Amino acid sequence: MNIRDRVAVVGVGCSKFGEHYDRSLEDLVVEAAFEAYRDARIEPARIEAAWVGTLESGYSGTALADPLKLYDIPITRVENYCASGMDAFRNACMAVAAGMYECVLVLGFEKLRDSGRRGLGTFGTHPVVGYGTTAPSLFAMAANRYFKTYGVTKDALAKVAVKNHHNGTMSPKAHFQMEVSEEQVLAAPLICSPLGLFDCCPTTDGAAAAIVCRTDVARSIRPDPILVKGLGLAVTSGEPYLKPGFAYTGFPATRRAAESAYEQAGVTPKDLDLAEVHDCFTITEILNYEDLGLCAPGEGWRYVAEGRASIGGEVPVNPSGGLKSFGHPIGATGVRMIYEVCQQLWHKAGARQVKDAEIGLAHNLGGPGAVGCVTVLANA
Amino acid sequence: MNIRDRVAVVGVGCSKFGEHYDRSLEDLVVEAAFEAYRDARIEPARIEAAWVGTLESGYSGTALADPLKLYDIPITRVENYCASGMDAFRNACMAVAAGMYECVLVLGFEKLRDSGRRGLGTFGTHPVVGYGTTAPSLFAMAANRYFKTYGVTKDALAKVAVKNHHNGTMSPKAHFQMEVSEEQVLAAPLICSPLGLFDCCPTTDGAAAAIVCRTDVARSIRPDPILVKGLGLAVTSGEPYLKPGFAYTGFPATRRAAESAYEQAGVTPKDLDLAEVHDCFTITEILNYEDLGLCAPGEGWRYVAEGRASIGGEVPVNPSGGLKSFGHPIGATGVRMIYEVCQQLWHKAGARQVKDAEIGLAHNLGGPGAVGCVTVLANA
Repeated sequence: MNIRDRVAVVGVGCSKFGEHYDRSLEDLVVEAAFEAYRDARIEPARIEAAWVGTLESGYSGTALADPLKLYDIPITRVENYCASGMDAFRNACMAVAAGMYECVLVLGFEKLRDSGRRGLGTFGTHPVVGYGTTAPSLFAMAANRYFKTYGVTKDALAKVAVKNHHNGTMSPKAHFQMEVSEEQVLAAPLICSPLGLFDCCPTTDGAAAAIVCRTDVARSIRPDPILVKGLGLAVTSGEPYLKPGFAYTGFPATRRAAESAYEQAGVTPKDLDLAEVHDCFTITEILNYEDLGLCAPGEGWRYVAEGRASIGGEVPVNPSGGLKSFGHPIGATGVRMIYEVCQQLWHKAGARQVKDAEIGLAHNLGGPGAVGCVTVLANA
Repeated sequence: MNIRDRVAVVGVGCSKFGEHYDRSLEDLVVEAAFEAYRDARIEPARIEAAWVGTLESGYSGTALADPLKLYDIPITRVENYCASGMDAFRNACMAVAAGMYECVLVLGFEKLRDSGRRGLGTFGTHPVVGYGTTAPSLFAMAANRYFKTYGVTKDALAKVAVKNHHNGTMSPKAHFQMEVSEEQVLAAPLICSPLGLFDCCPTTDGAAAAIVCRTDVARSIRPDPILVKGLGLAVTSGEPYLKPGFAYTGFPATRRAAESAYEQAGVTPKDLDLAEVHDCFTITEILNYEDLGLCAPGEGWRYVAEGRASIGGEVPVNPSGGLKSFGHPIGATGVRMIYEVCQQLWHKAGARQVKDAEIGLAHNLGGPGAVGCVTVLANA
């Protein structure tokens, strides 16, 4: 069975992403949630239950009841590494599809800049990190293997950074609005060879929200709800990087989650009008193209180099600017992607609008590399 | 809408609870999960998705894929303070009721004794704890207010400890198998006046598991699945103890969650044959009687003193021994309660069996005091 068309999004919100030393987590959450309420033209009292996604901001759902005025209802925190926000969305959709609630709120948030946390450098007790590795080093291994397998070089990665920073200049809520040139990317300080500063997403504070309803209720709230077509989640193993069989040139978790989401949605990658994917590092976006089936294995570097991932290209990827430019407040990211896909499907994305967008995909990778989460959304 | 009868439990498992310095969290999880597989007579490959509940054992679901051989399927971690395990169960039930999966696994676990964690003393960043208070001090305030309001003394609390330790002697997996006398309870060292050592639950390691199926599938697995009748969760506020309106003589979160679960189940407290409730402290159990409607406000102390909460009484409460005697590995507790209710409804509870048990309730309180979670289960 699947989720197809039984649940819809009626409103989304997103805080400005960036370094918010002067604002609390509650400030960011309120900004995102109340934008979503306004977008849906509903009152907070309409919300019957909520799900919050955060990796390590230390909040259970309880602390949200007060700032959001959500009293006496169920609030559940979901944690699933970098897919925390999208998995919160998935659980909310299933609860609505179960008929338990008509209208619920999903929130993703993280405050990384003044919490003593270091974003992708701190995966808590994940066993891979327990051995002393950090996210840049793990994805650097993937980049080096990709280079060796397919005979490409750092130039291939730089094209992702250039594209996503360009898209970010058209994204008013993105952490960065700043073009970068291929030369700048290649000349940037190395973080972990071959990944330089511009190959890595930043450490960002932010929150994003979505309001999810039963489809018949959604249609009574607005004429153009966004239908949830597929929800895929796969955990392939706790330690992909430690497995002898791990190829380093892609993530089985993404492939499995995408397969599930495509099957539920009844679509193929060819049907997508845009995709928001997990570009925690530039190499990750290239691997994502291949894992999501936008192109064949080994062709990801060409996919971006030939402009097929640009706005106006075959399937535009990360028109928002992606994690690279929009930022990556871990628990917020999955919901922020859903925010962007909805903006695109509602044709409200301004300068970064993908023409005639009707079907969009959002993708998180977490855990590191063990968790793939894919959501397919479409116009009603 | 509600969950009633659409989802059922087909197998449960529980590790020995206690101080497991010699066993890893994975050891405990495997013990609980494989007991549940055996109980349901299914292979792990039958599981299509999993939910794990843990407060702060630092594990996302990913780290469970390997020990449990659950590859390529969705695994979601739910955190909701002391209700983490029961809320994981709730989300699993809703996903099954949504038709997304036929057969899923729920796991609750926590390793408190050699993790540097101090159980109820560490609520992470909960705002109440941020002000320097700990769980014993919060519940001590409730006890003192209860004493003042209803004119009772510490003897009232001691009766809960005596009952639950007695029940624990019949619970082979409980942390403690040890009778205590009212004199011993009253003479024990003070933790936070009026709560003494035997008024507080211990700090325990453990894991518990449940296998949840669509009801038609459940009936094909075993002739006697346990039906999920009601799932209530309520978050009343992030900081009940800081609210001017907080009465200290009960928890609105429990009342609201129970109201929701009873309504879904179509039962009243009178219909219950037993209840597993959140006796993190002896005073909490007395307040739970009142909040769950087993007796009127102010009558909870009588309910235990008159033996109405004992096995053989009106509605036996915590026949397992409760958190007090079975232990309280935070994320495990909610699932452990479901384990106990199922044992009772299957009439497999040995010396602690409640005669003719047909309908049972499980209740968690968390957050501290902000989160109430109530599950009603019944024989098919």
